[in-house]
Amino acid sequence: MLKEAIYHKSDSTYAYPLNEKRLCIKLRTKKNDLKRVTLCYGDRYEPVSPITIFEKDMDLTYRDELFDYFEIIIEPDFNRICYYFRLEDENEVLIYSQRRFYETPPMDRNRYFMFSCICKGDLYEGHKWWTQSVFYQIFVDRFNKEKIDDNWFMDPTPERIFGGNLKGIIDKLDYLEDLGVNCIYLTPIFESKSNHKYDTLDYYKIDRGFGDEETFRELVEACHSRGIRVVLDAVFNHTSSNFFAFRDAIERGKESPYFDWYFIKNRDEYKTFGYTKLMPKLNTASEGTKRYLLDIGRYWVEKYDIDGWRLDVANEIDHKFWRSFREEIKRVKSDAIIIGEVWDGAESYLQGDQFDSAMNYPFMYILLEYFAKGSIDLQKFDWEINNLFVRYRMDIRKNLLNLLDSHDTSRFLYECGNDVERLKSAVFYMMTTIGIPMIFYGDEAGISGANDPDCRRTMNFDNINYDLHSFYKKLIKIRRGSSALMEGEYRTVKVTDSLYAYRRVTEDEEVVCVFNNGDREEEFILENCGKVVSELLSEAKYICDEGRLKLSTKPGDKYIFRCQPPEN
Amino acid sequence: MLKEAIYHKSDSTYAYPLNEKRLCIKLRTKKNDLKRVTLCYGDRYEPVSPITIFEKDMDLTYRDELFDYFEIIIEPDFNRICYYFRLEDENEVLIYSQRRFYETPPMDRNRYFMFSCICKGDLYEGHKWWTQSVFYQIFVDRFNKEKIDDNWFMDPTPERIFGGNLKGIIDKLDYLEDLGVNCIYLTPIFESKSNHKYDTLDYYKIDRGFGDEETFRELVEACHSRGIRVVLDAVFNHTSSNFFAFRDAIERGKESPYFDWYFIKNRDEYKTFGYTKLMPKLNTASEGTKRYLLDIGRYWVEKYDIDGWRLDVANEIDHKFWRSFREEIKRVKSDAIIIGEVWDGAESYLQGDQFDSAMNYPFMYILLEYFAKGSIDLQKFDWEINNLFVRYRMDIRKNLLNLLDSHDTSRFLYECGNDVERLKSAVFYMMTTIGIPMIFYGDEAGISGANDPDCRRTMNFDNINYDLHSFYKKLIKIRRGSSALMEGEYRTVKVTDSLYAYRRVTEDEEVVCVFNNGDREEEFILENCGKVVSELLSEAKYICDEGRLKLSTKPGDKYIFRCQPPEN
Repeated sequence: MLKEAIYHKSDSTYAYPLNEKRLCIKLRTKKNDLKRVTLCYGDRYEPVSPITIFEKDMDLTYRDELFDYFEIIIEPDFNRICYYFRLEDENEVLIYSQRRFYETPPMDRNRYFMFSCICKGDLYEGHKWWTQSVFYQIFVDRFNKEKIDDNWFMDPTPERIFGGNLKGIIDKLDYLEDLGVNCIYLTPIFESKSNHKYDTLDYYKIDRGFGDEETFRELVEACHSRGIRVVLDAVFNHTSSNFFAFRDAIERGKESPYFDWYFIKNRDEYKTFGYTKLMPKLNTASEGTKRYLLDIGRYWVEKYDIDGWRLDVANEIDHKFWRSFREEIKRVKSDAIIIGEVWDGAESYLQGDQFDSAMNYPFMYILLEYFAKGSIDLQKFDWEINNLFVRYRMDIRKNLLNLLDSHDTSRFLYECGNDVERLKSAVFYMMTTIGIPMIFYGDEAGISGANDPDCRRTMNFDNINYDLHSFYKKLIKIRRGSSALMEGEYRTVKVTDSLYAYRRVTEDEEVVCVFNNGDREEEFILENCGKVVSELLSEAKYICDEGRLKLSTKPGDKYIFRCQPPEN
Repeated sequence: MLKEAIYHKSDSTYAYPLNEKRLCIKLRTKKNDLKRVTLCYGDRYEPVSPITIFEKDMDLTYRDELFDYFEIIIEPDFNRICYYFRLEDENEVLIYSQRRFYETPPMDRNRYFMFSCICKGDLYEGHKWWTQSVFYQIFVDRFNKEKIDDNWFMDPTPERIFGGNLKGIIDKLDYLEDLGVNCIYLTPIFESKSNHKYDTLDYYKIDRGFGDEETFRELVEACHSRGIRVVLDAVFNHTSSNFFAFRDAIERGKESPYFDWYFIKNRDEYKTFGYTKLMPKLNTASEGTKRYLLDIGRYWVEKYDIDGWRLDVANEIDHKFWRSFREEIKRVKSDAIIIGEVWDGAESYLQGDQFDSAMNYPFMYILLEYFAKGSIDLQKFDWEINNLFVRYRMDIRKNLLNLLDSHDTSRFLYECGNDVERLKSAVFYMMTTIGIPMIFYGDEAGISGANDPDCRRTMNFDNINYDLHSFYKKLIKIRRGSSALMEGEYRTVKVTDSLYAYRRVTEDEEVVCVFNNGDREEEFILENCGKVVSELLSEAKYICDEGRLKLSTKPGDKYIFRCQPPEN
């Protein structure tokens, strides 16, 4: 048994409550090393000695290049829990408890791992509509406006303003509803001189180029009446250098009540977003700034009933601020979603006390490498995906916001060398895997483009790749009709050079997704699938032979099998 | 290279800021596996590509049974940092970045580990007086009272009240000052019917058996005038079942404004501390309870100038509550210390946002096993100690409150089979190692006793083991006179069957502690010690031979060598 590979830590992503009763426990071991892992647990306060120990075998749920991960949910009658693990390989049985290995369990319950108490105050609550959503990101200046003119079709530059606006979005709600998306995330819409509006001038005012407060209210109401949610972009890391507080702070220096809202050394030296002088960084550790920004966060939820916030440059703002932000927002709308922009692992924000979700850029990188560039093989792809999902809590991994691209990256299609089939394979994967899918406006229409500004081309509703569009539409519909695809856990079923199969499963439903991404036929056998399975893409039914379905898959084939719920 | 053993996670105890400029980075590897670990880091936003990479070799600082730990402090000119590790063993060089291994560094800075931003709002600030303290825990009913009578010398029982009080403590401040302790921690002093007072009746009232508010004010002032700090016990997990709010909640049920202060099912069923019906558990997730308790926390600091709180049953209360508690307390006294009672690893409370310190029970267990019971050998002792220290942040590990025993355990001396020499060895270790030492009243006098109630015997100032007492006194004096002992990092120097040597070092001072705990003579060579070293216990000076001091140690020998500061 490789002891060095074994990892567990209580009160972390390795042990956390799902609600007041249920606790999820995870253990990591070396890959293929253990044949059985048993969780042994009891009541820390049981007034007898030794205490009663309950035993449950843990499930091997995720596997990456180096490790196996075992998970289990327990639902004991007590909520102050102590536990240890019994680990069995071919040669030995060891006890693992509070970072030590033992031949036999320690006698003293104080030497067990402890989940001291499932505390109400620390519980995290997810909401159904999150996982039931397909997001659509709209870069407002480029999506649509009432009257399209020739200027609309110019090439984007960092400065050029095209005039897309809120009314333009309202006009295309039929299009969005038809596509099947049910949540739109708008890049910033508050007053600003730029086309992207990440340099805010007034957080309480809709940019007049985009519309006014009434147009915005109309948009939200129109969306809600169609079952579409609206998420806005909160740019709280920095403001425009023309923002009233910064101007006052620069002009009056320490005399200004806004001086400590920023990090100002002198008129020319101050902290900024990146090295952009036009975007001075806010000091969110200052009580004044904090109060001001929290009020904004609450205002748009309370007054305009928006459904959540995407947090710009979230990982450059303190956790303390985000904890307060969460409390502020949840107080007025408990199911509002809070999504952080974090480019690397977002674990420290996704422990239940800060964000509900993060833009899943690590997911994008893995899909880019496999589907777009072919720089990793399918086996590596599977390891990376497993590694990515398993690092987050079970109740949070399904809320991650998966994306193929955004206004801050080149278009996925562009990275595919404009090969639409490769994009389709990635879209198929995103729509059938764990996490909330997000489409960057126009991806579904076949818009391509290198990094900013090229990725921000205007939408041309008269030039839509309908083959691609209908592929998106179909997959969105399938996803939204399947609880297993929206909420189920993920299990790799089969990996070869070119064939990949994975299972999504909830209590009520089991779906197995398969794709052949190679250049030759390959056989796949669907096991334990009952008598008949439905394939959701082709809408065909397959008759199984004694609970098995033998399939010969061709290059490019994609399947989504809905099986009967498992018997056990 | 054993990849499975390698661990790093950003924005955790493996990467954290020490202040606005300095970042500490840690990496774990298999023991003895790597010969060199280099941190390679740069500015995430440097406006050139590829970015400039700075390289620094990391120090091997701690080693436990399975792992080596490397640490480094960097102080870059930028505060948005990306980094990766270069790992070298005998056969290969690998790059470790964002959980992946590479042959050569990835080109894209987005694939590096990221410490996105050193954020002011998340900084943790320690205070000098904490590490400069030696704590003394007083179980008030048993320490001293004005007039000792015969009843004072009865055996303790769970119910018996002996009448120790605050005036009794004031009368013994000379004793405490002479002993050298400079912080007293009092078990609860608020109104309660029990002798231990962990079942509070009124958090705003000093128990009349102990004195009144004026006596308490006098105690604090008398302490402060002697340079002694005062820490109180905050019992916020539960109250007495006779506490006004609980009585009202039980009597009026849901009609009571206090109903949600507790977890009440009906008159007979409610959550409690342990299974003690007399101590109903408070619902700290309720806003009302929270506000009430936070006010108490602030009140005693603000109005009586106490120096900190020890938090009873801290690990059964939500993190959210403790974060608010920290803000509330620090707002009125930024250097007040917050110490949680946590029996197992306290990492999730010691990230800078909740506690400053925790009662280090895992430390007690290790010392019990080695010094008292001899159930582990010296090598295992060293591994466990290293494992314990390295799991915490560098700036927090030195604030842990080390203890040998408390009112909740048997006396350490008792566990030693009343062998005073074994207790002395443990005391020597506690006073010279990393962390704040705490003495449970009377340990220094030779009080013994099994677990509660026996460990709570009354202090007999006429029956003090003066040999033991002067040993304590001397070690306290040495510790308080040495910045290296109080604040220095810890490095194991030598471990044999019976001889143990460790180094404590700051920028200004280096101390090497040595003890021979075996039954035969053993040689120890102190290296790089300059011309002369002072041994602080014997107050002798040793002349070194070309920077080396060769020492023949006898069983029971203990040395504290103060060396000249290292040249480099």
